[in-house]
Amino acid sequence: MFRKIANVKNIASIGGGPIGAGWAAHFLAQGYKVRSYIHSKTEEDAYRNIVEIAWESLIELGLSKTASLKNLNITDDLEEVLYKADFVQESIPELLKIKQDFYQLLGTKVPKDVIIASSTSGLTMTSIQKRCETSERTVIGHPFNPPYLLPLVEIVGGERTHPAALDWACKFYQHAGKQPLKLIKEIPGFIATRLQEALWREALHMVDSGEATPEQIDIALINGPGPRMTVQGQCMAFHVACGEGGMATNLDQFGPALELPWTRLKAPALTEDLRNKMVNGCNEMARGQHFSEMARKRDKSIATIL
Amino acid sequence: MFRKIANVKNIASIGGGPIGAGWAAHFLAQGYKVRSYIHSKTEEDAYRNIVEIAWESLIELGLSKTASLKNLNITDDLEEVLYKADFVQESIPELLKIKQDFYQLLGTKVPKDVIIASSTSGLTMTSIQKRCETSERTVIGHPFNPPYLLPLVEIVGGERTHPAALDWACKFYQHAGKQPLKLIKEIPGFIATRLQEALWREALHMVDSGEATPEQIDIALINGPGPRMTVQGQCMAFHVACGEGGMATNLDQFGPALELPWTRLKAPALTEDLRNKMVNGCNEMARGQHFSEMARKRDKSIATIL
Repeated sequence: MFRKIANVKNIASIGGGPIGAGWAAHFLAQGYKVRSYIHSKTEEDAYRNIVEIAWESLIELGLSKTASLKNLNITDDLEEVLYKADFVQESIPELLKIKQDFYQLLGTKVPKDVIIASSTSGLTMTSIQKRCETSERTVIGHPFNPPYLLPLVEIVGGERTHPAALDWACKFYQHAGKQPLKLIKEIPGFIATRLQEALWREALHMVDSGEATPEQIDIALINGPGPRMTVQGQCMAFHVACGEGGMATNLDQFGPALELPWTRLKAPALTEDLRNKMVNGCNEMARGQHFSEMARKRDKSIATIL
Repeated sequence: MFRKIANVKNIASIGGGPIGAGWAAHFLAQGYKVRSYIHSKTEEDAYRNIVEIAWESLIELGLSKTASLKNLNITDDLEEVLYKADFVQESIPELLKIKQDFYQLLGTKVPKDVIIASSTSGLTMTSIQKRCETSERTVIGHPFNPPYLLPLVEIVGGERTHPAALDWACKFYQHAGKQPLKLIKEIPGFIATRLQEALWREALHMVDSGEATPEQIDIALINGPGPRMTVQGQCMAFHVACGEGGMATNLDQFGPALELPWTRLKAPALTEDLRNKMVNGCNEMARGQHFSEMARKRDKSIATIL
């Protein structure tokens, strides 16, 4: 139904901003040929500059054998870019009307067996794909900035996306060196941005009410949750911190604290059902490891980072 | 007024849980003598176990020349611990009545020129110190778990805390290898926990409404914001991501997105005043560095971590 992943050689990166250029750098480092569409030739220098800064770190991370900056072709000829693409990564401005117009065009110009992924962080694919004639192959492939370094790509479709397109996207991003995360349903902001946004809005509240400065916010994050969050998500962090009792102990002990004004966000009611979902989810992630083994692994990784 | 920081040799770590034991491990690694008070001798094995697991990572981070596990003395003789202390780190259970009773006792048993710091994450010093006769030297010194690895210590006083005690605590924690962060005012949850709690509550909402599993939450954090948050807080992350325009561009461009339901937390109104506080704060942190220089540094650090 869709082009074979092993046969994907040419990537189209659409959009002249840091996300489009960041994606181009990532795919180049993975050994792909990249055709980048920019709106105007005047954007080319800034675009190349982003790719070159990215390249320094990509060298450090390790390039694919066939990787080369020579495989980058920057053009304002959209037809050529779309016609030759085996995969399209779209990163144009976040305005619904512009996206819809563009997907209407993509729907006819991009070969039907080619998957089209949007980097959007704020729009849903159901709304973006409304006027696209071949919407079954359109998906969200949302990176985290900078897209050439952070592994996460959140994947979700719209109402008219074919399930096979989502599976294809997951396999392709994995193949292309990313960590795909397929969402259960379409939600505004997806998962990572929602979590970051909750933190960000609380930070804005604190600055707004004179409780903290931006510098204090950043010192707190870099020296507190930051290094741990590189090796443990918030769920496993609490699971392991509570020793033998794990997440169940955490929820039973700190459940009442969910009522406290430790943030402006009102927590959900800690129902039996939510408690079970959290506890079971953490136990599944632990995959039978004893908590002291997990704590030891966490410590070694944090110590290495520090 | 208070004991000279250079003369602090003996630390009292009070409380038999992971925080008390974690603090003991940290101070031992810094070359201090530590007397740990546990409620009952039956807690000693578990306590030593935590210290020994911590020690493996502390070796990796680098011990002080005089550091030794032999400098640890675990006892259930509270009077001796308090009498000989040059600094008291209190990490007993988070119940106000228990803390108040204990600070009443500490107020008379600990020499008056010795600073007493509480590890509490949920209570304020104003409430804890209510019945303490010598409350001027009582402060919050809130670590982030695990306290022997994560550098952050949030410092704030109660209504009756002397400003000199806060300055002493900042200087002492810095001297003892920590990153002190002195708060502007007493707020529930301090800074780091408030930010983490906003993220955590949004995570609970997402699991509760079937939008994500705990494993998806953790995959998103570890592969998305996590590695970046080790090198950049959320303020500088947005400042640098927006290129030349920095935080001003971020707020002007994404300001409308603060109204979107990207999280359950309602954002504050983006007033001119809040905008200025954010922009000026970021410019101060940047200390004249050009954004491309900051982006390059960020990338190198993230690449190293990955």
